[in-house]
Amino acid sequence: MKAYNPEFRSRIKEHLKKQEFMHHMGFNLDVIDVGRTEGRMKLEKIHNQQTGLVHGGVIATVADIVAGFAAYTLVGPKEGVVTGELKISYLRAAKGDTLYARGWVIKQGKKINFCEAEVYVLNGGNETLVAKATTSMVII
Amino acid sequence: MKAYNPEFRSRIKEHLKKQEFMHHMGFNLDVIDVGRTEGRMKLEKIHNQQTGLVHGGVIATVADIVAGFAAYTLVGPKEGVVTGELKISYLRAAKGDTLYARGWVIKQGKKINFCEAEVYVLNGGNETLVAKATTSMVII
Amino acid sequence: MKAYNPEFRSRIKEHLKKQEFMHHMGFNLDVIDVGRTEGRMKLEKIHNQQTGLVHGGVIATVADIVAGFAAYTLVGPKEGVVTGELKISYLRAAKGDTLYARGWVIKQGKKINFCEAEVYVLNGGNETLVAKATTSMVII
Amino acid sequence: MKAYNPEFRSRIKEHLKKQEFMHHMGFNLDVIDVGRTEGRMKLEKIHNQQTGLVHGGVIATVADIVAGFAAYTLVGPKEGVVTGELKISYLRAAKGDTLYARGWVIKQGKKINFCEAEVYVLNGGNETLVAKATTSMVII
Repeated sequence: MKAYNPEFRSRIKEHLKKQEFMHHMGFNLDVIDVGRTEGRMKLEKIHNQQTGLVHGGVIATVADIVAGFAAYTLVGPKEGVVTGELKISYLRAAKGDTLYARGWVIKQGKKINFCEAEVYVLNGGNETLVAKATTSMVII
Repeated sequence: MKAYNPEFRSRIKEHLKKQEFMHHMGFNLDVIDVGRTEGRMKLEKIHNQQTGLVHGGVIATVADIVAGFAAYTLVGPKEGVVTGELKISYLRAAKGDTLYARGWVIKQGKKINFCEAEVYVLNGGNETLVAKATTSMVII
Repeated sequence: MKAYNPEFRSRIKEHLKKQEFMHHMGFNLDVIDVGRTEGRMKLEKIHNQQTGLVHGGVIATVADIVAGFAAYTLVGPKEGVVTGELKISYLRAAKGDTLYARGWVIKQGKKINFCEAEVYVLNGGNETLVAKATTSMVII
Repeated sequence: MKAYNPEFRSRIKEHLKKQEFMHHMGFNLDVIDVGRTEGRMKLEKIHNQQTGLVHGGVIATVADIVAGFAAYTLVGPKEGVVTGELKISYLRAAKGDTLYARGWVIKQGKKINFCEAEVYVLNGGNETLVAKATTSMVII
């Protein structure tokens, strides 16, 4: 795995400022490394669906963010990535204090960086895996 | 296709009041029929990612909502549905005035209602298909 | 949708001769049109899994073939396609005389042709949809 | 993770005898453990697509088999599993002597055992990951 832009961290931090929807949700990307990122957010009532659990759309969004920026850490200075497709499996009901997500590249390619992401709920001292995603991040 | 709860419309309308994240985004489900739903929202700056296009997470969320409630129209009074998994393909960049989504059941089952969803961007008079999703809605 | 190689039919027919696994299964691609293909095969005992139903792998294989060649009809003379990813939903148990599949491109792109496929079982006069697939065909 | 049928190994071995398509391909399941299985086959010309690489359908089939039987190791004596859906990402071109696959359950549930599978090609001393799959195995 190779980062073709040595300035990937500062470049991504600039981009994050303009990630409107991520800020609207309250998610923060706090680890940016070669081929992997992590982020978290405090869970609020606004993140729920009708039964009081975290909305599947929130979970898909953070999976997309951590996987997408993991792919982004590897591309060249004049390249970017867009999500080609994402599949997410909802393994357990999500309810807790904090949502934590991590994404990583499983295969770096010329056209596609294949990535995965896991989403966890933290509740007091407990950590529960609530969803797993696989995705094709297309290099543009 | 059979709706096992004749009161599905009023039941879903009650549920929608408590869909916190859907309201936080501004999405509204305006068609609820046997095995299919439709909804839309005005696109605002808060829905964007860093390049000014609609965030993939927003698109995945509305796909999940229209497919999930399409599945919900068919289940019995004591049943509900949860998203087992969702795959979404991002076909085109999304930029416009309004996001419109429609979801439908392609196979009603005892354990799973398999659904699909399409998400469109409306821009002036033009309508563009920006994403297509397939999903397994698990009956609980 | 545009076929960048006017000779796509003859080119695909040449390729099909060398599709070893397709012949090993007995599948035949009998419709090759701009952005879509169809094929069928007689179902034999060798196509089954342990309970006497058609094996999910057989169904995934024919979905991959019809979607892949649908994508192939559109690419230029010096291009090819490979399957980037495929998701298939198994809607019903498959048992019958004949397996029929059709694939089509839903979005032609520069890097990816997004495709779908449906697989049917024919049993006497009845036709049953047994699976639906979505796939990213990467242009190389 | 819990195997609800202590006799799962002998039961699966009985089933494997009747896996017609698996035998037609030449695949053999040689590890059957609680929540995980492994198998392999010698690669022959019949497994190829037109460019001399292993057919994507072969790879999807072995992924389905190892994931499906991994799910099967956990269900009760009167239960079985069927593949609800499978998504497979093709990471690298597959060419070599032997195809090796392993599948495992990532979340055991009451209705669905969520599984993953990896498919490798062995070529002389080298082992290459060529595909990764995620799947919902529905308990029946």
